[in-house]
Amino acid sequence: MQDQLHKIRHTASHVLAQAVLELYPDAKLAIGPAIDDGFYYDFDLNGQTFSEDTLKELEKMMRKIIGQNQTMVQSTKSVAETRQYFKEKNQPYKVELIDDLEKAGETQFGFYDLVNQEGNSKFIDLCKGPHVTSTKEIGAVKLLKVAGAYWRGSEKNPMLQRIYGTAFATQQELTDYLAMLEEAKKRDHRKIGQDQELFFFDEMVGKGLVLWLPNGTIIRDEIERLAVEFEREAGYQRVVTPHLAKEELFLTSGHLPYYKDGMYPAMIMDDGTYYLKAMNCPHHHRIYGHGLRSYRDLPLRLAEYGTVYRNELSGTLAGLLRVRALAMNDAHIYCRKDQVKDEFKRVIELTMCYFKLFNLDNFWFRLSKWSPDHADKYINEPENWKYTEQVLREVLQEMEVTFVEADDEAAFYGPKVDIQFKSVIGREETMSTVQLDFVAKTRFGLHYTDETGKPNNDVFVIHRAPLSTHERFMAFLIEHYAGIWPVWLAPVQVIVAPVGEQFNEQARALSDQIKQAGIRVELDDSNESVGKKVRAAEQKKVPYTLVVGQKEIDSGELTVRLRGSRDMVTTAIADFIKQVQAQVTSRKD
Amino acid sequence: MQDQLHKIRHTASHVLAQAVLELYPDAKLAIGPAIDDGFYYDFDLNGQTFSEDTLKELEKMMRKIIGQNQTMVQSTKSVAETRQYFKEKNQPYKVELIDDLEKAGETQFGFYDLVNQEGNSKFIDLCKGPHVTSTKEIGAVKLLKVAGAYWRGSEKNPMLQRIYGTAFATQQELTDYLAMLEEAKKRDHRKIGQDQELFFFDEMVGKGLVLWLPNGTIIRDEIERLAVEFEREAGYQRVVTPHLAKEELFLTSGHLPYYKDGMYPAMIMDDGTYYLKAMNCPHHHRIYGHGLRSYRDLPLRLAEYGTVYRNELSGTLAGLLRVRALAMNDAHIYCRKDQVKDEFKRVIELTMCYFKLFNLDNFWFRLSKWSPDHADKYINEPENWKYTEQVLREVLQEMEVTFVEADDEAAFYGPKVDIQFKSVIGREETMSTVQLDFVAKTRFGLHYTDETGKPNNDVFVIHRAPLSTHERFMAFLIEHYAGIWPVWLAPVQVIVAPVGEQFNEQARALSDQIKQAGIRVELDDSNESVGKKVRAAEQKKVPYTLVVGQKEIDSGELTVRLRGSRDMVTTAIADFIKQVQAQVTSRKD
Repeated sequence: MQDQLHKIRHTASHVLAQAVLELYPDAKLAIGPAIDDGFYYDFDLNGQTFSEDTLKELEKMMRKIIGQNQTMVQSTKSVAETRQYFKEKNQPYKVELIDDLEKAGETQFGFYDLVNQEGNSKFIDLCKGPHVTSTKEIGAVKLLKVAGAYWRGSEKNPMLQRIYGTAFATQQELTDYLAMLEEAKKRDHRKIGQDQELFFFDEMVGKGLVLWLPNGTIIRDEIERLAVEFEREAGYQRVVTPHLAKEELFLTSGHLPYYKDGMYPAMIMDDGTYYLKAMNCPHHHRIYGHGLRSYRDLPLRLAEYGTVYRNELSGTLAGLLRVRALAMNDAHIYCRKDQVKDEFKRVIELTMCYFKLFNLDNFWFRLSKWSPDHADKYINEPENWKYTEQVLREVLQEMEVTFVEADDEAAFYGPKVDIQFKSVIGREETMSTVQLDFVAKTRFGLHYTDETGKPNNDVFVIHRAPLSTHERFMAFLIEHYAGIWPVWLAPVQVIVAPVGEQFNEQARALSDQIKQAGIRVELDDSNESVGKKVRAAEQKKVPYTLVVGQKEIDSGELTVRLRGSRDMVTTAIADFIKQVQAQVTSRKD
Repeated sequence: MQDQLHKIRHTASHVLAQAVLELYPDAKLAIGPAIDDGFYYDFDLNGQTFSEDTLKELEKMMRKIIGQNQTMVQSTKSVAETRQYFKEKNQPYKVELIDDLEKAGETQFGFYDLVNQEGNSKFIDLCKGPHVTSTKEIGAVKLLKVAGAYWRGSEKNPMLQRIYGTAFATQQELTDYLAMLEEAKKRDHRKIGQDQELFFFDEMVGKGLVLWLPNGTIIRDEIERLAVEFEREAGYQRVVTPHLAKEELFLTSGHLPYYKDGMYPAMIMDDGTYYLKAMNCPHHHRIYGHGLRSYRDLPLRLAEYGTVYRNELSGTLAGLLRVRALAMNDAHIYCRKDQVKDEFKRVIELTMCYFKLFNLDNFWFRLSKWSPDHADKYINEPENWKYTEQVLREVLQEMEVTFVEADDEAAFYGPKVDIQFKSVIGREETMSTVQLDFVAKTRFGLHYTDETGKPNNDVFVIHRAPLSTHERFMAFLIEHYAGIWPVWLAPVQVIVAPVGEQFNEQARALSDQIKQAGIRVELDDSNESVGKKVRAAEQKKVPYTLVVGQKEIDSGELTVRLRGSRDMVTTAIADFIKQVQAQVTSRKD
């Protein structure tokens, strides 16, 4: 958060406290910090609660105080003075804080005094700041909600009332922020996932384990098919590996013991100890190692939509964004040193192809490098670090993409390029990652036979997952499209809606014809009115609704209603089918 | 095994012992039973070993004894007499057996005396029989191999030499059997799996866990695609479920505690105990239960190529035939009682469609029913048993397929139809199964809303897996095709073989053109002669080899070599591509 915004919000929390005391002189104040998206303040109202209406009144009062252009006057007082002041004001929570801070060694306290234009002190709070100089710098303020919160977070203490709010330098910024909140709510992947019957979590199956419903599976399969096609074109070979392995494998890879806490518990079988896999790479390395590889076989690109497992604490799981089993659009590229640059470039190009397809453009690259000053954190191959970092930099430069460099941020096994995204609701996240690895060759004894017939251990591995994990990518796509899927991803592409029961048979024949063409079609032969059918289709965000009545049967043409439009279009059946097929094949909306 | 065959083999083992004593008078005899495919006998040669040549000599000697038409004379002797006899013959293993059997309470022993035509006893062995009356009934005998075996199976005991052999009533049967053994060796799925780089097992990954290599993954994906297409056409919906779940789910399904030994060990997480799934049904039942289902929504058909886990003992694992993680071509159909017959019939029809596609015709059906006499073994719904068994019978009758009925062989939750196969190497196995289930509805509280708006619990579930588990089906297909895959399954469909380096560029262009058409093509631009390239392609069982030289460049036509043929065919490029595409699309060879 910028400093000025932080100051504005910090000050706004004091203004809120002052406003509460104006309306509820007996209110007891607890604490009120600035937080990521605004601020809060905790109050004890002696059993009374704040209502929605009260929030409006408080907001009004805050605007009045802000309008008074009060100045924030800072001072410092001794412990005794401070305690005395808040005792007189009958503020026991503040007194308790002062007592505790004194015990912790504090000898004096920051004081902020809100002073009006006439020079009168209107409200004093215990605080170190920083604040803005005058309340008029708070351009806009909004109280958002009230929630219960225990004093000092312990359920043994009294339950207080926490008012959340936000503040900005200008009204426009506040308006934009509130619009974004509204948008985020509409686009929430959990809500759309439920509305569109894409996926769910089941108490009996367990936390963080997604069950993909038929609609969600259609999208999942389409995205996997996309990856399969693009990767086949790019020379990848698909493999399938088990979801578990013996501890020997993970001891070799180093996941044990270094990543043990993140792994599922061990399963002890009659021939050893097994673990669910946390990553696909060890299995792929074994596949590489299974055959004799010649210099002519490289690069070898092994791809798998592989599932990996993370033992996240159940309390930290959140929708599709944090789960315990993740399907990764994974691949590992095994290449010679002289192939690293070309392979790395191809990966970045492939990634950008995907992004273009999904109309994603709000991203940039971050090149994470090692640090010779912290050489102990990294594999000790300075020449390889130098070489590969330069190779990665050159690729990004040649591709003329926006990128930043970050020292001392590499993986221990090599430099990496992360692709950072800003989502439509303003969340910044790492979507894809491409990582170089010069440790695997040693740990797994990877070799190839060079031109002279000698074994060469200098096998470079590229780890890459352009489409992230399927779960995270789906959450991102749901938000991105707000559930309005492009035709190729729409679980139902066409709804056929007969205007009355007497047209059901023709409607079914039409629906069958469209299905034969490989299009996902549903017949709505319910007893509802056609208006209601059209609205239902609209609500389900189905791209096309075909109305079938006497007119259509007489003319032999289709009446098509496009998603999000009130207009009907008339077209020949064959043309319609061709158009939808073309949209699906091209994967353009 | 038939009784007579068993007697023949049992007798042959004594003949073997007699033959060994003829050639090695000092040999010590251990035991020699008849086994599934023949017989064996264990010997102690005081450190000497049997060679391949010795087996031939022994076989000759056995034929001589058999030719002598010796009679098997049975008698009974006391413990003391028996012990005395074998002590005199210096047969310590027999004496040890007698001592132990006496301790176990045996008071007399069976004796078999091989007596020649002149009435002279030629060889006496300790045995209860049964045997054939005369050695001449052993129509044909063959010694197969020699292997080490510890006396009484314990490594603390001396290592003996075990000679394996087989015997039949006629020479023709033996010849057929040996031919089948030869064929089985050629078609062994492990050998072909290795030769064609389809899959492997890795010590570090663990026992019974298949790693599918790129070639095997191509076949796996093609078969899954086949299932997806056929099932989509048949109105199935695909879902994806996690590979594990909390114990609550398996307690509800009854897998815990009844099937616990077959399941992987528990994994204790911070929110409960998790298990890898042994079956997909519990997850699917939860998906059914997740939505409100109306009578109009049924039948609901949920399909998944789901992976299930079996905690088999490591010593029992065998290639793809017994593994610890299996991908099932699974689906569960939820329907009303009045829909059971139609749905069941559709499943059988779909199954037969698959079999026809793979040219499988050596199969029959087995209807496994309950038994009112053992009503405690089954769910107590006599009316449903009667109804559904009759429905299943009617379907099989109407379809005019070969079927047998088996009483008291049903699953506890309903009757089932298994489809039995005789493989090309004579192994009989259950390939597919269709099972009715009237327990799930109660255990999982499955409901639908009927025409009157009331909840109805009478939801019938059909479990079905026409393509078996992928692992077992692959083993079967590899044997069935002997690795000569139909075009649509062949990992590489076309090899382009330039006759010399100067044609590599044109060959690559041709190969790219074919690849663009969606055909799996490989360019062989090695420095080998074209003859060697063609032979290599033949060895890899690639359907088409295209030879590219001056002639082809001049004419603009292709020279095509078909797999298994010495002839070359000339054709236009476009025609060739069209033909291969048609073969792939139709899935005919």
